[in-house]
This record gives sequence, C-alpha cells and structure tokens, in this order.
Amino acid sequence: MPNNRADQNARQRPGRRRKSRKRDRKSSKPRLPYIQRNIACFDILSEEGLCLIERNADIILRDTGMEFRDDPEILELFRHAGADVEGERVRFEPGMCRKIIQASAPRQFTQHARNPDNNVEIGGNNTVLSPVYGPPFVHDIDRGRRYATLKDFEKLNKIHQMIPYLHHCGGIVCEPVDIAVNKRHLDMMLSHIIYGDRALFGALIGAERAEDSVAMVRILFGEDFVDQNTVLYAVSNTNAPLVMDDAMSGSLKVYARNNQAVACTPWMITGAMSPCTEAGTLAQLLAEALASCALTQLIRPGTPCLMGSFATAMSMQSGAPTFGMPEAAKTVLAAGQLARRLGVPFHTVGSLTSSKLADGQSQQEGTMSLIMAVLAGANFINHATGWLEGGLCTGFEKTIIDADLCGKLIGFCEGLDLSENAQALEAIAEVGPGNHFLSSQHTLDNYRHAFYRSTTADANSFEQWQSEGSQDTMLRANRIWKDLLANYEQPPIDPAKLEELQDFVARRKASMPDQAY
Amino acid sequence: MPNNRADQNARQRPGRRRKSRKRDRKSSKPRLPYIQRNIACFDILSEEGLCLIERNADIILRDTGMEFRDDPEILELFRHAGADVEGERVRFEPGMCRKIIQASAPRQFTQHARNPDNNVEIGGNNTVLSPVYGPPFVHDIDRGRRYATLKDFEKLNKIHQMIPYLHHCGGIVCEPVDIAVNKRHLDMMLSHIIYGDRALFGALIGAERAEDSVAMVRILFGEDFVDQNTVLYAVSNTNAPLVMDDAMSGSLKVYARNNQAVACTPWMITGAMSPCTEAGTLAQLLAEALASCALTQLIRPGTPCLMGSFATAMSMQSGAPTFGMPEAAKTVLAAGQLARRLGVPFHTVGSLTSSKLADGQSQQEGTMSLIMAVLAGANFINHATGWLEGGLCTGFEKTIIDADLCGKLIGFCEGLDLSENAQALEAIAEVGPGNHFLSSQHTLDNYRHAFYRSTTADANSFEQWQSEGSQDTMLRANRIWKDLLANYEQPPIDPAKLEELQDFVARRKASMPDQAY
Repeated sequence: MPNNRADQNARQRPGRRRKSRKRDRKSSKPRLPYIQRNIACFDILSEEGLCLIERNADIILRDTGMEFRDDPEILELFRHAGADVEGERVRFEPGMCRKIIQASAPRQFTQHARNPDNNVEIGGNNTVLSPVYGPPFVHDIDRGRRYATLKDFEKLNKIHQMIPYLHHCGGIVCEPVDIAVNKRHLDMMLSHIIYGDRALFGALIGAERAEDSVAMVRILFGEDFVDQNTVLYAVSNTNAPLVMDDAMSGSLKVYARNNQAVACTPWMITGAMSPCTEAGTLAQLLAEALASCALTQLIRPGTPCLMGSFATAMSMQSGAPTFGMPEAAKTVLAAGQLARRLGVPFHTVGSLTSSKLADGQSQQEGTMSLIMAVLAGANFINHATGWLEGGLCTGFEKTIIDADLCGKLIGFCEGLDLSENAQALEAIAEVGPGNHFLSSQHTLDNYRHAFYRSTTADANSFEQWQSEGSQDTMLRANRIWKDLLANYEQPPIDPAKLEELQDFVARRKASMPDQAY
Repeated sequence: MPNNRADQNARQRPGRRRKSRKRDRKSSKPRLPYIQRNIACFDILSEEGLCLIERNADIILRDTGMEFRDDPEILELFRHAGADVEGERVRFEPGMCRKIIQASAPRQFTQHARNPDNNVEIGGNNTVLSPVYGPPFVHDIDRGRRYATLKDFEKLNKIHQMIPYLHHCGGIVCEPVDIAVNKRHLDMMLSHIIYGDRALFGALIGAERAEDSVAMVRILFGEDFVDQNTVLYAVSNTNAPLVMDDAMSGSLKVYARNNQAVACTPWMITGAMSPCTEAGTLAQLLAEALASCALTQLIRPGTPCLMGSFATAMSMQSGAPTFGMPEAAKTVLAAGQLARRLGVPFHTVGSLTSSKLADGQSQQEGTMSLIMAVLAGANFINHATGWLEGGLCTGFEKTIIDADLCGKLIGFCEGLDLSENAQALEAIAEVGPGNHFLSSQHTLDNYRHAFYRSTTADANSFEQWQSEGSQDTMLRANRIWKDLLANYEQPPIDPAKLEELQDFVARRKASMPDQAY
C-alpha cells in the first residue's frame, strides 16, 4: 500500500502549493480537489442478493415498464432501439437497458471547473462532496428561519468556496425566492460563477432552463470545449413509481445531447412512492435508473450518466419523510453495489435530517446518512452539508457542522497508513513500558499532520468550556461561518467573460415576463 | 438468506411473548436480548496489512516486552509458561501468547443474567450493547452538571432497564461519590441486582473488590453455577504503554480463576500512551492485548477473555482527548479484524464524545464512534449510551438520544430482508406507474413493522414543531427519560436472596472504615 500522504502530495498541482502551505500551518493537510478513496466499499448484499434485485428490476421493466409523459421524441427513441412502446408506456426486454448502458456509458469522467485545480474525477474510487440542493428557506441562529433570497444564495456560495472539504459549487444552495421562478436559474448560475471556481450544476427543470445553463458555460469555457468536455452536472429525478415527466426528460435531453453529466436519480419516499420494504424499493429504483440511464445513451452514446439513489422511509404515523434511518442506510449500500455492477458512477445524498435545528437529532441522522453514502462508495454526494427540515431549509450553522464531518470522512477515506514511519516500531522500543510518547522524536516528527483537527468540536475541560460561555455546537458554528465570510477571497475571473455572462443573463431576463412557475 | 423476522420470532422465548405483543402495538418489533448481526464486518486492512501488524506486535513482545508490576504470582506464571522474565519485565517469543490463547480461550460464551431471557451470547456474530461506564458526574438539563450520587445511579439503572435497545446492566453507570470509594462497589452491585435483571459487570479495580463481586453473584446464582458458568463481565485495562499494575492484575486474576469474563482492553490516548500513528498504535494495542489475554488462559485455561480496544486521538493543541475522529474509526475497524484472527470476542467502546452537552457535536462524534464499533464487528460495546465530556459525565438526555441510535443500528444489523414479501413484486405491478403505495395491500400488510420508529426525532413540519414549542432534541429526550422513570417496573427477585445480598453488603461495609481510595 502506498504512503498516502506522499502519493497525494505528488498529485497536488504546483499552482495550489502556496495557498495550501498557508492553510497547513493552522490546520492539517493540503486540500485535495476530490476524495481518492483508499478504503473498500461496504457490501451489504451477497452476489445472490444482487442477482435477485437485478432479476426483479428486469421483471418490472418487462411487465410493468415505465411511463415517459408528454415527450413523443423519447418514445420514438425507445421504439427505434427495440423497446415495446404502448401509448406513453415503455417496456423493455430483460437486459436491454443494461446492454445499451454498458455499450457506451463511461465508468469515470472528468468534470471541468473554471479553475482547473478544482476539476473533479467522477467514478472509480473517487468521491465528490457537494453542498445542499433545493431548499426555499434558510436558517441561522441570529435571524431564525426565513424565505431565502439571492443575497443568502451569494453568502452560501462564499461560505462553500471557503470550505476546503467541499469539492463542488453545488446547485440550488437555497432557492432565491425574491427572483421570479422562471429567471432564478440565470442569477444562480451567475452567482456560482462569480463567487466560486469549482465545478457547476446545470438547472434541473425543463429544456429551456437547461439550454440557458449550457449557453452560459459555452461563454465561460468556449463552445468547442463544452461539446467535447463535461462542465455541467445535473440531477434528473424520476417521478416514482415508474414515471418520467417532460420537465425532467426535457433537461435530461439537453444535457445528454451536449455531453454533460446526468445523475439519473429515482427519488423515493418509501412506503408512498415505492414499497415499504427495501428489497422492493431497490428493484424499482434499479428499474427506473436503468431506463433513465439507457435514455441518456440513446440520445448521445458515451455521454456521462450516473445511477442515482435517493430513498428514505416515510413515517407511518404522520406520513412525513424521515432521514438517517436504518432502512435508508441498507438501501444506499445495496444501491451502490448495483451501480458498480452496472458500471456507471454512483450518485447519492449526504447529511439528511428532518430536524429544524443543527442539534443532536440533525447530527445523529446526518452523520448516519453521510457515513453510509461514503461506505456505499458514492462517487458524488449531493447535500453533503447544510440540509435541514427534510430539505426545506439550508442551515448556516448546519453547513459548518456538516463540513466538519466531511473533513473527518475525508480523513477516514485515506485508509490506514502502513509506511515504516507509521509503524513506529523504533518509537515504541525507545519509549518503553510506562513512559509517554509526547516528547518522543516520532511524535515531534509527526504531530503536525497526525490527527484530524475538528473545526466545531470543543474538547476542552468543562471548566474551560464554562468560562468561555458554555457554548453549544451551533454557537461555535455561527462564529465560524461569519469568520469564513469575513475572510472570503473572490477567485479571479476574466472580466470580458464576466461581462458577456452578465449581458446574457440581463438579455434573457428581459426577454420574458416574470412567472411563478 | 433467511427471512430475519420469522427467524427472530422463532428464537423468541414463549415467556416474553405477552409483554412483547403489548410493546408491539405502539412501537415496532419484539425485543431481542442481544444483536445477531446479519451484516458483514467492515475490513479496513488487507491480509498483508494484518500480517504486518501481527508481526510488529510480536516484535514488541519479544524485544520490549510488557511490565507486570507488584505481582510476583503473575511473573511466576509467565516464567513457568516459558516467557523471559527479567525483574518485572516479561518478554515473549513470537507467537507464544497467540498459541496460549488459541489453545483454550473460547470463541464465544454465554453470560448469564438473573433473568434467563436476558442471557447474552458474547462472540461470533453477536453484539451486546451496554451503557456508559465510569463517570463521576451526571448531567441533565433541569439540574445541570453535578457530582453523581447513589440516587443517580439507581435512576440510571431504572432508565437503562426500560430501554429495549440495551442488553446489559452496565457497571459504573455513574460514580456514586456520596459513598466511600472502598465501599461503592457493594452498593453499586446491589443496585444493579435490585433495579435490573440483565447481565452484570464485576468491579474493576483490585482483588478485594473483585472477590466481593464474585461473592455476591454466588449468593444470587449459587456457588456451583458460578464456577461452571459466566455471570460477570469485567474490563481489565492496561496502563499503556506496555504496563499492567496490580490493581488491574488483581481483579483480572480473581475473575479468571472464577471462570468469569475479562475484556483485556489496552486504554490509549494515542500520541501520549501510544504512537500518534494508527499502525504503531495497533501493534502496541495487539501486543498488550495478547499478553493480557494469555495471562487469563494461564490462570484458568478456557476462562472467557476478550480482546479489547480503546484508542482515541489526543488534541495536539491542548492535550485533551478527542472522540469520534477518523483515526479512532480506522483503528477500531482494524482492531476488530485482529481480534477475529486471534479467535476471541472483540470488546470496544460506543458513542464517545468530548462535548459537554447532548448537542450536535456529541451526536456527530458519538454516531461516528458507535457506527464504527458496530462495523468493526464488536461483540461487546461498552459506553453505547450516555457518555459525555470524555467520560467524565453521564448525561440523562444523552442516554436517551444515544439509545435511539442503538435502536437504529439494531435495525441496520438485521441486514436486508430478501423474502418474497420484501421483494414486493406484485405490489409494484399492482400499483403501476404514477400511483402510490399508501393504500396497497402490501403496505397494509407490512406498515406496522416496516420502518424503525425513532423515539427522539421530530419529523413534523416546521409549523407543527414551532406550535409545540420549538423543542430541540435534548428537551424531547428530557421528557422521555422522565416517562421511562415514571413507567418503570421493578423486575421480581427472590426475597430470601435479596435479604442475603443486603446482609452481605451491610456486613462487608461495616467491616472496614471509609476510605477515599
């Protein structure tokens, strides 16, 4: 096994060295643009179990099939490929979707960022951590919970850019509800480009907004570059059970046509949108993902697609979705295995919770959920930070506390260093029984990088903690995000490109009336 | 794979049926007396890595050896077995300790409880969850942090007895500091026997207190039964690096002689008591565990012993121990693998944290720590609930919040049900695209046991949560432990035995002056 640290340093680009060294002094190791896992995935299903789920997914696709609504073009594509199309219902012979996918879908691809140091490799042993996606509300302990605005969106972008453990800009880090629904995607993309320099999400809903996303990255990266390279990442959710509507298929088609990545992610509150048993949910999830991924390859063979999984249990008392529960943990682990067998990267979700605060519940649920996503071998983890209230709210303090967990899991994924230095046999002999290692040469040589340093934990004595105001984690996190904002540095951008992007957004916004849908 | 649920129901004893059915109605499944894991362990080290650590442990035992202080009897035992004894230093030829252990130590054993329904199987695929051990302080949100008393000890025993996800009485669930140090163990054991009917811990420190523990279980179970069966579980910590003192060896000898279980657990703040690198810590940990386990087998071949692991990183800024960090996670996973190769059950620790409150920090750290212990395949998890402040404080609310996590992990360990019912193929065909599963026959048949029901989570809407007082998890947990106390039912006990035990404790306490050590 290689010495991870040396290996990783070698991979580090020269351009980032100076900044990293500065960060180094106060915290731990140089930042890497994504996780290169040096640990195994956790397999919860046997070969036999996996074959059973795959067989059941094939039965579902053959007997029940999937509906693609309001999109004749897709029906024609499937018919031409040999599927059985009856009205909007599409049925597939066993193995058909898998064969289409495996013929052309890449196992791994690069998503380019506007700062090449932040390019991410999606697939293989790599994991990309991306912040929360979608909430219409934001929460911090100063102002409480409120509708989000574009100003909140910008603040979150700045905070995310300053968090070394996040690898991606993210998408709708909160919904800027002060902007018309049909224009938000333009302001959001512009905000991401201005305040961050990591890889970008494309707009989720509808062909028109997806076209806007592609138009903007063409300005940023150049037309030819975008045609040949992946610079956008987009999620495409099914409407489980077994439906895709034109809002989703519309954007999927745009991204696939343009060689941009689509994470085909059945979205399931199990018990409502899939059976209340994991084995049933997994077969349905695989069936929907197979049909969706196959669609991307029929549109443009070789375009990057991921198998996604978002399955969480419903409270059988209240009907509310629950998070961080054992059923979701088992499902994501099995889904990861199914994706690896299919041979496409695996997308899933991170530190989910139904809590309204960044309290004990939120961290018990979120930690369970994020650890399981990592153990499932996820290549892209959406919502790795900030999610509250079942996805209705982005928490500023939650973002900081979750980011600390991301840092811990990055350290965990490094695996065990077995170098001679790490074995420390000489140190053990030198120190001998009953003495301590504090002043041993080995400790002096290694202490700077020895342990992960938590940003939000208080490990001090009770008395010291009390003398400092008996702060809980939320209070400490509050100070941290304000510090990050205060120290934020805007990444440089070509002023001509920025102007062109601003013009594009202004023109597009002026070209249509405000709409609330 | 068997249908877990049916399988477990079959294992359920008839005597527990009525109570279980009652519990069933409001929550989920019948209580099992311990976890029978239906999932794999997570292996972090390869065969090659494991051999390297084992080789290094052998080198440490051969070249440096271990010191057994102030206990000539032990030195004589080791000398007689062929070890190289020089003063108090004992050195072992490579493989010697492993050979001694593997010749007689059981891979699995039963620890009997005074209620046979609560007997636990320790070893194999089984996991026993036990509450916090050792804190001199207690904390609840009504009265804050304070020194613990025997009254607190009793309250905790009652609460633990009412938590279905705990499998063991635990030991020093808090230190009753209102009782003299040299007499506490008597009152604590009596309290455990009166208020609970699960398996018991033996006193930790010194031969005399261990003898008292054995005397009390002889009264409770009968002398012959105790000689032939294991009814006590005791931890024996080394004084890392590479020392065992007579306080520990004294109790170890008593328990081993009496066929009672000893968890040989090196206790390490890494960076101080072992190297600041995991590979070095693991070799030292294995060396200390090998020597300690071998000692139990030299005293009485076949007496149950476990390999234990408690290794956590020190803050290199403040020197304070830290918990739930990635280095501890990697170490416990590797230690579990080493124990399985040695062929003895594996003991480790649960939801550890340095937080002073049951807040976000405590649950992020504790959840990481407990999940890793479970994935490490631990057969006995001490401190599964309640631990705060690096083990200085038992939290009442923390106990409840951690117990919820225990419940989730019990569900997780059941693995994936692949029965025909769980596959739900008919339900998926019946519901079809775009409909919902809420009223399907499959959901109606399965909803009662479908999902784990969290005791502490609030999954309601923000508005409902707000209308109910915007409570954080600690406030909800506070209500829960009070409810458990209010509904506590004392398990029956033979009055003659109780009187005999009370007499014994009174006599022993009267026989010695109070001491503060």
